[in-house]
Amino acid sequence: MAGESKDRAGKIRIWRNARLATMAESAAGLGIVEHGAIAARDGLIVYAGPEADMLAAFGPTVFGKAGEIVDCEGRWITPGLIDCHTHLVHAGDRANEFEMRLAGATYEEVTKAGGGIVSSVKALRAAGEHELVAQSLPRLDALIAEGLTTIEIKSGYGLDIENEKKSLRAARLLGEHRPVTVRTSFLGAHALPPEAKGDKDAFSDLVAKEILPAVAAEGLADAVDGFCEGIAFSPEQISRVFDAAKAAGLPVKLHADQLSNLHGAELAARYGALSADHLEYTDEAGAAAMATAGTVATILPGAYYFIRETKKPPIGLFRQHGVRMAVATDCNPGTSPLTSLLLTMNMAATLFGLTVEECLAGVTREAARALGLFGKTGTLEAGKSADLAIWNIERPAELVYRMGFNPLHARIWRGR
Amino acid sequence: MAGESKDRAGKIRIWRNARLATMAESAAGLGIVEHGAIAARDGLIVYAGPEADMLAAFGPTVFGKAGEIVDCEGRWITPGLIDCHTHLVHAGDRANEFEMRLAGATYEEVTKAGGGIVSSVKALRAAGEHELVAQSLPRLDALIAEGLTTIEIKSGYGLDIENEKKSLRAARLLGEHRPVTVRTSFLGAHALPPEAKGDKDAFSDLVAKEILPAVAAEGLADAVDGFCEGIAFSPEQISRVFDAAKAAGLPVKLHADQLSNLHGAELAARYGALSADHLEYTDEAGAAAMATAGTVATILPGAYYFIRETKKPPIGLFRQHGVRMAVATDCNPGTSPLTSLLLTMNMAATLFGLTVEECLAGVTREAARALGLFGKTGTLEAGKSADLAIWNIERPAELVYRMGFNPLHARIWRGR
Ligand SMILES: [Zn+2]
Ligand SMILES: [Zn+2]
Repeated sequence: MAGESKDRAGKIRIWRNARLATMAESAAGLGIVEHGAIAARDGLIVYAGPEADMLAAFGPTVFGKAGEIVDCEGRWITPGLIDCHTHLVHAGDRANEFEMRLAGATYEEVTKAGGGIVSSVKALRAAGEHELVAQSLPRLDALIAEGLTTIEIKSGYGLDIENEKKSLRAARLLGEHRPVTVRTSFLGAHALPPEAKGDKDAFSDLVAKEILPAVAAEGLADAVDGFCEGIAFSPEQISRVFDAAKAAGLPVKLHADQLSNLHGAELAARYGALSADHLEYTDEAGAAAMATAGTVATILPGAYYFIRETKKPPIGLFRQHGVRMAVATDCNPGTSPLTSLLLTMNMAATLFGLTVEECLAGVTREAARALGLFGKTGTLEAGKSADLAIWNIERPAELVYRMGFNPLHARIWRGR
Repeated sequence: MAGESKDRAGKIRIWRNARLATMAESAAGLGIVEHGAIAARDGLIVYAGPEADMLAAFGPTVFGKAGEIVDCEGRWITPGLIDCHTHLVHAGDRANEFEMRLAGATYEEVTKAGGGIVSSVKALRAAGEHELVAQSLPRLDALIAEGLTTIEIKSGYGLDIENEKKSLRAARLLGEHRPVTVRTSFLGAHALPPEAKGDKDAFSDLVAKEILPAVAAEGLADAVDGFCEGIAFSPEQISRVFDAAKAAGLPVKLHADQLSNLHGAELAARYGALSADHLEYTDEAGAAAMATAGTVATILPGAYYFIRETKKPPIGLFRQHGVRMAVATDCNPGTSPLTSLLLTMNMAATLFGLTVEECLAGVTREAARALGLFGKTGTLEAGKSADLAIWNIERPAELVYRMGFNPLHARIWRGR
């Protein structure tokens, strides 16, 4: 392996005869390049643009120096897909609750009946680290099969030091089992564990003062998340956790305004959050605050669909105020057992009216921004990671239009 | 191959150590057998039930006589899935129209603007038979990958003798390219071709008197379908086509009450149709008529979702009157570019409130009934085709609960 890496180091790999949707911010629309090529070296893009101009950029011997040239035969290349909001690491499923809801129970009724997140907490605590990895791999593989190259994975079913650390280690391990970039978020303020006996104040203190510092000390979290909701934690409780995140030097994000308007969007903006997520009940003040703070709105249509929510996130307000929108699966066993970013894009378009461009930016450039990775991946531009998805399609809109169909031809992660 | 078939003829193949959801009508619920086994000979199920009772049925030497014994390691077996309503054979896609609808155009506006079905007619007429097969195979493969063993495929984009015959031949050819049962429906009364110059009466006469007889004479259709709607054909025009179907000895089915209530359900029932499909606007008289006629209600949640319909089919009335419900993809380029029966089940549950049992019956036993194949496939019972789907799941509800995840372990069609 070492020898192989050495052989490859410095060699240029080229994908030519391709159509590019670069998603570059400086370009109009999808950043389309009809006769495009991409060159990568040491895992980074060194060129992405018109094939004809590549010669000018690299000199006439570029093809001779290339370690490998891939003829894309006219296929489309987009940035590798990014799922910026998942609870992918979990144990068991909640198909039983799904049957319960079909019999008429609401999400809150299921939660109050001792089902909901707490049943996933019990299952996760009972599972070993490797069992967690094994159970999560099929879900990760489903996403990878559709061109995923970066995924965010939250904790939040452990809810004590050992089990939160176990979840985050399992998430990191997934990135060693598969060629994919994993970003972790510590979500201690997700739900109340049984031993907290209903004391949300005491538990959010425990999260802020003990669990978060322990997780941060081991470098297990890239960000800190919370669930601000009547059935979860109050803005004040979340603030304590966010203060602890700031003290630990970690960026924050928030499950905000999903079921009611507790002004979570404004809270997130006040802390300069990378993203605020869900946002069905966010009002104009929230949208304006997010715009000012540069906080990304992460749209999660799978949960909206699955829990039969009827209030849609204020897409018009986000557009009007210039809030950037990411789109993610929210993959989780209770409210969004969804492992397809292609289907998620279709839902964002069909249910919320996002355009094709907004959907594609939402699972590439804006998803990278929601993870603080805007400079690293999410567009086809020199200097970024060579994370590519190559598609058997005639036009990018097909990636949003189809349901239950995967036209991926090949996936490249860090140039391979 | 002949030698191989001869070797296999008469040999028993057994799947043991399985959990069965037989979907047998005589059983309660899903017809669950916890410690189950299935035996097949010459492509037909000869036993499906408790493994312990198999010895009694076949004598103690059954395992010795078996040509092959498959240990299912506790996995679930359901009947192979059946998609009883598709327009799988089509040319091109309509991703462009999808973008148009995202910009605000309605389904009827798209249709009136010369887009809609007519654009698919142009594309299909321009494609050769083998091109049609090649374009349709990836869609069929997506369905097969989820355990499909029987599929209905409609014509309806040809709209003249040669092109309707070409479509149906392509459909039949798909069944030679893949191990799957194909049932064809002639859907001449689908839309008005450009050369009809808006004369629906004249065109439905042409369908009834010329196209249908030509198709029937070559045995290309297993059933006759129509689209009864303001934007398509009136009940009177459909009746002419159905009369011609009766004269040709072919059963009928109908796209009924999708966008308005033209009493298509009652029309279908009056002709003893195998199924009436869509049914969003069907009223109680329609449901009652279907129940009396034994006409299956085929629920198509993909189209409802994709065109953002808000009126749901009257599931409560169907239950109340004892109308049987099938569930299908309606796979088509304009209003349901959907190639996943698993996702379709999730949509039927989430959008329309069908129970897990109704969903699973809808893509197995009731789908078989909607195709006139109730005696041949759709349940795990002796005498039926050994069409099986073997799943990596802990409980059948998982097949309905997940979105964008395929837990298929193996698929068996006619015993292989
Ligand atoms: Zn979440
Ligand atoms: Zn149809």
